[in-house]
Amino acid sequence: MKARVFVTLKNGVLDPQGKAIGHALNNLGFESVGEVRQGKLIEVELSETDEDKARAELKDMCEKLLANTVIEKYEIELKA
Amino acid sequence: MKARVFVTLKNGVLDPQGKAIGHALNNLGFESVGEVRQGKLIEVELSETDEDKARAELKDMCEKLLANTVIEKYEIELKA
Repeated sequence: MKARVFVTLKNGVLDPQGKAIGHALNNLGFESVGEVRQGKLIEVELSETDEDKARAELKDMCEKLLANTVIEKYEIELKA
Repeated sequence: MKARVFVTLKNGVLDPQGKAIGHALNNLGFESVGEVRQGKLIEVELSETDEDKARAELKDMCEKLLANTVIEKYEIELKA
């Protein structure tokens, strides 16, 4: 089973990296670009085949290692 | 219109950061974890409302700035 974990800064947490990307895009002529936020994408291959168990395990991984839950939120997406 | 751009290393390109995460997860006791790959997630807010135009613009952004297309691939996801 494959999973994707998206880790992004919580709303309200300043994201200078995203801001820099936004400015760079504006300077390149992409004027319709508003706010940009940058996060992390982690693709994980799991041998676990039960969807609920996999999701619980991924949540645990996020809490323990993948995300800094003080300033970051995470989202888990499972692919069969 | 909001969009998400996923930038990941192409298959076959070595991903030491992903490997490190994979090992760390294994060491934390997550034994079902196989390959891990790390990528970037970029959330963009666009004032463009036409879906096709937005997609074309995002593709252009990826080619010009967001992804290094020599070693990275990208995926665009639009949310209404």
